[in-house]
Amino acid sequence: MRTHFCGLVDETLIGQTVTLCGWADVARNLGGLCFIDLRDHEGIVQIIAEPDAGEVFKVAADVGYEYCLRVTGTVRKRHAVNDKIRTGQVEVVATQIEILNRAEPLPFHAHENAGEETRLTYRYLDLRRPEMQRMMRTRIKLVQALRRWLDARGFQDIETPILTKATPEGARDFLVPARMHPGEFYALPQSPQLFKQILMVAGFDRYYQIARCFRDEALRADRQLEFTQLDMEFAWVRERDVQDAVEGMIRDVFSEVIGVQLDAEFPRMTYAEAMRRYGSDKPDLRIELEFADIADLVKSCEFKVFSDWANHADGRVVALRVPGGASLSRKQIDDYGAYAAKFGAKGLAWMKVEDAAKGREGINSPIAKFLDDAALAAVVQAAGAQGGDAIFFGAATYKTASDFMGALRLKLGKDLGLVRDGWKPLWVTDFPMFEWDEDEQRYVALHHPFTAPAVDDIADLRANAKTAVSRGYDMVLNGNEIGGGSIRIHRPDMQSAVFDLLGIGAEEAEAKFGFLLDALKYGAPPHGGIAFGIDRIAALMAGTESIRDVIAFPKTTTAQCLMTGAPSPVPDKQLAEVHIGIREKVLVDKPTV
Amino acid sequence: MRTHFCGLVDETLIGQTVTLCGWADVARNLGGLCFIDLRDHEGIVQIIAEPDAGEVFKVAADVGYEYCLRVTGTVRKRHAVNDKIRTGQVEVVATQIEILNRAEPLPFHAHENAGEETRLTYRYLDLRRPEMQRMMRTRIKLVQALRRWLDARGFQDIETPILTKATPEGARDFLVPARMHPGEFYALPQSPQLFKQILMVAGFDRYYQIARCFRDEALRADRQLEFTQLDMEFAWVRERDVQDAVEGMIRDVFSEVIGVQLDAEFPRMTYAEAMRRYGSDKPDLRIELEFADIADLVKSCEFKVFSDWANHADGRVVALRVPGGASLSRKQIDDYGAYAAKFGAKGLAWMKVEDAAKGREGINSPIAKFLDDAALAAVVQAAGAQGGDAIFFGAATYKTASDFMGALRLKLGKDLGLVRDGWKPLWVTDFPMFEWDEDEQRYVALHHPFTAPAVDDIADLRANAKTAVSRGYDMVLNGNEIGGGSIRIHRPDMQSAVFDLLGIGAEEAEAKFGFLLDALKYGAPPHGGIAFGIDRIAALMAGTESIRDVIAFPKTTTAQCLMTGAPSPVPDKQLAEVHIGIREKVLVDKPTV
Repeated sequence: MRTHFCGLVDETLIGQTVTLCGWADVARNLGGLCFIDLRDHEGIVQIIAEPDAGEVFKVAADVGYEYCLRVTGTVRKRHAVNDKIRTGQVEVVATQIEILNRAEPLPFHAHENAGEETRLTYRYLDLRRPEMQRMMRTRIKLVQALRRWLDARGFQDIETPILTKATPEGARDFLVPARMHPGEFYALPQSPQLFKQILMVAGFDRYYQIARCFRDEALRADRQLEFTQLDMEFAWVRERDVQDAVEGMIRDVFSEVIGVQLDAEFPRMTYAEAMRRYGSDKPDLRIELEFADIADLVKSCEFKVFSDWANHADGRVVALRVPGGASLSRKQIDDYGAYAAKFGAKGLAWMKVEDAAKGREGINSPIAKFLDDAALAAVVQAAGAQGGDAIFFGAATYKTASDFMGALRLKLGKDLGLVRDGWKPLWVTDFPMFEWDEDEQRYVALHHPFTAPAVDDIADLRANAKTAVSRGYDMVLNGNEIGGGSIRIHRPDMQSAVFDLLGIGAEEAEAKFGFLLDALKYGAPPHGGIAFGIDRIAALMAGTESIRDVIAFPKTTTAQCLMTGAPSPVPDKQLAEVHIGIREKVLVDKPTV
Repeated sequence: MRTHFCGLVDETLIGQTVTLCGWADVARNLGGLCFIDLRDHEGIVQIIAEPDAGEVFKVAADVGYEYCLRVTGTVRKRHAVNDKIRTGQVEVVATQIEILNRAEPLPFHAHENAGEETRLTYRYLDLRRPEMQRMMRTRIKLVQALRRWLDARGFQDIETPILTKATPEGARDFLVPARMHPGEFYALPQSPQLFKQILMVAGFDRYYQIARCFRDEALRADRQLEFTQLDMEFAWVRERDVQDAVEGMIRDVFSEVIGVQLDAEFPRMTYAEAMRRYGSDKPDLRIELEFADIADLVKSCEFKVFSDWANHADGRVVALRVPGGASLSRKQIDDYGAYAAKFGAKGLAWMKVEDAAKGREGINSPIAKFLDDAALAAVVQAAGAQGGDAIFFGAATYKTASDFMGALRLKLGKDLGLVRDGWKPLWVTDFPMFEWDEDEQRYVALHHPFTAPAVDDIADLRANAKTAVSRGYDMVLNGNEIGGGSIRIHRPDMQSAVFDLLGIGAEEAEAKFGFLLDALKYGAPPHGGIAFGIDRIAALMAGTESIRDVIAFPKTTTAQCLMTGAPSPVPDKQLAEVHIGIREKVLVDKPTV
């Protein structure tokens, strides 16, 4: 239907006849001429219809915003050159204009950024906007670059099932009633974890998949019911084999897609170090602020909150320097206190170092009076505070103090403009194997129950479960966990022991994971892998905060698709076919069949 | 963990030390030496442990089938050369053997082809077999080649949702209860049809996706609940733009993946012609048998079945030559009759031409006596039967006669060895727009309700709906519909008219497809596309009859995954969370909450 793309018509075509298809981005009458900016996915070119062109001029005068047109005409040099666009040197004098489709007045104009609800309802118009096209194309390029990298290195792209087995472990499953098996259900996969391990047992050596995953969780601002991960698994490997390979991949892909050179070697940090220095297992290294542990300095001070936690076996007292924080208002400090409270803080002690040379006199702090001169000076020094700075203090259990001070560090970093430009990747390693769940009074797996412990000896693991370290690792970029993986358990006895430690009895393990335990019995090779969050990486690359900008048809935080209206009621007949009924109806009334 | 792959150790490595990982394919003691065939995804290499090697020999003697090993040793020239494998010139003398994992006695041996139930239960062992590895790798290569082709041509790989809107049209949807919206459901997509059309409205110009699709239909031998299609859509195109592009793609990919050169130009055939010559809209052109229409010759014969249908406005009388069929036994002929009956035949008339030179005397047929000499001779001639051949006859409505004679043609082709080697692609075009559904007493869409009719005029379409032809097209290969597509409706008035003709009222259309009708109002470009069945194409390329051989984790015809045990019952608590109950329980007892 066309000979060229609108956005690529340039001086090399002057004098030639072209046929173009596109949307009327702008159409106007000016000085007796009809001007139409015709737009396609490559860009815009100016079309001119002259008054003496007869029928063509009449058609052109009738064109409205976003009409679909097919235009034939001659390319000529333009008088009023526009240097900003590739086609800015030329215009096309129309000899024929065909209106392929009209457009009603738009709910919002392609050049404006409407409210998100309107944008999602009319997603086809939203996606036409150049900014959305750019962000979506960044995602497309990312996936292409990843595939090319993996294909070139012998990774096998293998599809795993979407209709699979419910495994009530981890997040909540989406259920699909099975028509042929009344009362039974498939579940949508939370990840292809077990399938990819099975593929290693099956001899595929190197696997990847751009895999759709599903979690029926409360939607936080930036979560989707379904999301996409680059899922990878390697046979016959140790941690560094996986890490070195995928670190190279991420480096290559960032360079190829957005021209960014990441560190030649990503820094590495244990979980313990990350918590100690930044109060986070995904520290944003663009913010240079670091914690100072001051328990030793306040063990015997008179401020009970400090001294109690400083002497507590699982306590932590931490100081965080706030550069220039001496100028914070009381209201601002209170707001930070309220913010920290959301993450578990019972209170937020503070100290302004108004004049470093004056000692106690230069310090403004409600807690200063509880510290003797030596302790006060030591605390200021440990925090690295200069005149004009402030210090925030956290005192609580190690985990709680780390959590809220870590959250505060991020917020201060953003508020005070301390987030440096650029890209800060790192590896976080040596995660704890288990976390104690107070509510359930049992251990839960910090990664997942298939993660190998660092020790090979089962008795050793049992004896030291509390402090056991796993062979898990996360790749973190600018404060986002963009990838997470581990070496897996490949021995059936170790897998059974870990299930046992997690409170999954032999019978339950057999019912849920019997096929995995079986597979491990028949010569499962050592294996490990990782999964990367494609939506998040694409959003980072596209420079947007929201993963919804790099998903063609995202759902809202209320789990709806505003364009199609999903989810929606279905006729009772359809439910009967799959042997289910709606619960409320069932419980409140009689079934309506 | 390894320096080389087992299957790639060759003479260039002689004298070098290598470390290999793999499975013990065979392990045996022979003449005081331990021989182990060590296998990885690349192949097998022979490992030797010598009695004077001490610990290594003891470990080697302990190795059983499918043990996972890590072997370090020196490559040396082998005495008993094996020319059949790449590593056949060498062997590796072990200096260290590490047992990474033991294997229990296998349920079936890697070299045997066990029953399908066993194979699917222990899929990880089944997939280890070299034949399965070969077939799966063919699929992987196919998808890789398709992506490379499409990426190089500017097609945009865009993911569309898996949790989407139920549209009770076409096949049965899989339903997913929505936890956040009690009584409402998502549906899994039968295809991304509407999303890809929306993407064209959204300005993406060229789209593709290797897309998972879901149909909750009775599983025929070779259907799966979930299947994979290469889904494509083009903006600003007519039929030939799509067809020429994808024909080139299929040609390139067959050449690249399996080294097969398909026709430089695929033959084209209308639906009407395909039904007339082969009784099928996906004719297998490897079988040269063709129908002869003989209604004109038997209009006035005394065999009522023939003459009635020959004079019926919608009747068909068709003859099919069976080369060498004169030697068919009565039993065989009866069996073909029973076979045809499955496809709607009320009876199967037959004629053996035992001696062509003898006229009526040379013919053996229960119906010969009803035909006069001229008619008899004309029928034999029309069918093209020679001495030694037989003729089968079908007489019924046009559709029924075509259906069962078409099925018979395929069966005869296979039974009589008339299926020639090679690859016979073709395009089938000009499908009817609508089919009359006798049960529902309404038109149904032969492709789908978004397929454009060949006429642009709505009044014309309404007046001639019965004979209207669509802009749909199928790509057929060796009797399989491997791709199907169409130019879509892009005008909202035409889309509404087609919904109306299909008995979908304005209100229902708005409820189900309102977002499509809206999208068409805002300048939808002319567009069209196609979808290819990846599972089927991969199976054809791999030379297997069953798509299950090219799916890593397929389901059985009873819709189960024998390995994981999906589907399965789930705790009632989980059902309550998504507001549903099991129907039978609900109706029979009280709900068990």
